[in-house]
Amino acid sequence: MPELRRDPAKGKWVIIAVERSSRPSDFKLEVEEPAGPEKCPFDGGKEDQTPPEITAIRPEGSNLNTPGWTVRVVPNKFPALKIEGEIESRGNGVYDAMNGVGAHEIIIETPDHFAAFETLKLDHASKIIWMFRERYLDLRKDQRLKYILIFKNKGRRAGASLEHSHSQLIATPIMPDLVKIELEAALTYYRYRGRCVYCDIISQEINEGKRLIFENDDFIAITPYASIVPFEIQIMPKQHSSDFGDIRLAEMNSLTKALQSSLKMLAKAVPHVSYNFYLHTSPLENLTIPHYHWHIEIVPRLTHIAGFEWGSGLYINPVPPENAAKFLLEAKEVQE
Amino acid sequence: MPELRRDPAKGKWVIIAVERSSRPSDFKLEVEEPAGPEKCPFDGGKEDQTPPEITAIRPEGSNLNTPGWTVRVVPNKFPALKIEGEIESRGNGVYDAMNGVGAHEIIIETPDHFAAFETLKLDHASKIIWMFRERYLDLRKDQRLKYILIFKNKGRRAGASLEHSHSQLIATPIMPDLVKIELEAALTYYRYRGRCVYCDIISQEINEGKRLIFENDDFIAITPYASIVPFEIQIMPKQHSSDFGDIRLAEMNSLTKALQSSLKMLAKAVPHVSYNFYLHTSPLENLTIPHYHWHIEIVPRLTHIAGFEWGSGLYINPVPPENAAKFLLEAKEVQE
Repeated sequence: MPELRRDPAKGKWVIIAVERSSRPSDFKLEVEEPAGPEKCPFDGGKEDQTPPEITAIRPEGSNLNTPGWTVRVVPNKFPALKIEGEIESRGNGVYDAMNGVGAHEIIIETPDHFAAFETLKLDHASKIIWMFRERYLDLRKDQRLKYILIFKNKGRRAGASLEHSHSQLIATPIMPDLVKIELEAALTYYRYRGRCVYCDIISQEINEGKRLIFENDDFIAITPYASIVPFEIQIMPKQHSSDFGDIRLAEMNSLTKALQSSLKMLAKAVPHVSYNFYLHTSPLENLTIPHYHWHIEIVPRLTHIAGFEWGSGLYINPVPPENAAKFLLEAKEVQE
Repeated sequence: MPELRRDPAKGKWVIIAVERSSRPSDFKLEVEEPAGPEKCPFDGGKEDQTPPEITAIRPEGSNLNTPGWTVRVVPNKFPALKIEGEIESRGNGVYDAMNGVGAHEIIIETPDHFAAFETLKLDHASKIIWMFRERYLDLRKDQRLKYILIFKNKGRRAGASLEHSHSQLIATPIMPDLVKIELEAALTYYRYRGRCVYCDIISQEINEGKRLIFENDDFIAITPYASIVPFEIQIMPKQHSSDFGDIRLAEMNSLTKALQSSLKMLAKAVPHVSYNFYLHTSPLENLTIPHYHWHIEIVPRLTHIAGFEWGSGLYINPVPPENAAKFLLEAKEVQE
């Protein structure tokens, strides 16, 4: 069972994943190539190589764990947190610990080993987003959980160990630091100005236009004013909404277009780029709130995180987001 | 001039370093080897290849910017923040900006291209730490500055672009996020328990012993209970002290021994490891405080920061710190 531990001097939790690795010699000093198709357990036809499926979009009447599916969800074989057990919290002198209860699922986005999310047909890609929502709505019934983070690692510099297109979901029994910090900053703004800070950002960005890279009826994508890395992108619903679970089915295609279009521009501007994206939404204990606004952040992995960033939390970004927006929009024009 | 920008939705500042790089094609997708001795501007005898020296430990009567020095400090050629100018803060709709005033210095630790900090003679290594203190005490007279971070990048995975042994110092006109978070957590603990949380940690770690990897009269080194990465190490003075500037000359050798010994164990346990270290001390506006305790954190760069960590701030560490301590101590025994 993994263990959650808290350092009182940082107020920060960590997951100690005892079952994942152990000896110093297990650490490869080189970044390895992700495993190719021969060793890939996510391909269609290899359903027996993953843990039994949780759910899938598959033809009516077809059996679980058989081919024919479009999107398939399975538990992570080496979960960071485990679904079984009760939450037990305990002290250890100045320290706190908790057993590692939670969920860790893989959303296999396609049976095709070589397909990429950004170039899937809209209808297919939209089903992936729909599956994010399904898993999110299902897991949040679990009273032990405090937060659900949906994320994607693409490319080896982004930490992907398998190249087959997939996303992940980790549900945690604590509120993650970074989401807590966002919630607090947004609440401070709301108390002072009486409006959602994200709504104000959206209105300013649409007005100014110089960091806006995509807009449709329901969503915008921008390169944020204080982007901490080059070509960072943020996607937000234009209407105020704190809870991703509230997304209407009619908006699913709009969101998919915003995400696919942003990722296509990025891949065109910086070929073979590795990236992470993740979805920030309200905490499970307080889903509908006036000060928070769900969004997706896309983080290209182009620069190093060195000692200064690691020790201060202050990042040095060599590409002003106004320039990033220009480069991304140029890439879009080339594309079309 | 670099610009500092603040995102109101995260409450987070970033340094936009316009002069450092610009086009998408400037980003190398592969981690490059640091430049070798041919292109190294830090070697003894190449003093004209760096910006003019700020200070150096050199034979009495020898001229600035000539060979013969032991430790030499120069401004960074591509500074993240610049020393000239007044701080001007301004709003931009919902956003805030400030011009990038600060300091960015390089501490060249030795004229020898192939020497490493961990294996320098104690007397020499101790002079480097003494220089950290000198630069810290000198810069903190500058009323524009809020914080001074001393740090080191060793190895390409830690973001070092030059292999010649050196450390850096960046002084900022704002308080860095991570230090603010530590200060707040420490203050919360102090208000509740009336003691410095670090002092309590030190006493518990010496008592329990299972995460203690080094101890002398003045310092201890531990693998922290909630280490966020494998083989993380923290060095702390045993006596309460919030301000690194207060370190006594008599303690300089003790600290150097703690740091060299920790880094030697790490390099022996994980050969060719890349690492960062940085020194956390009290804010310049409030140097002597009962709730904070200066310390050095050593962060080996062995694991990936993937989407989950990036989006949540919650890390998954596959090596329990008790095991890390055991491996490090075994490496120490082999060494001796």
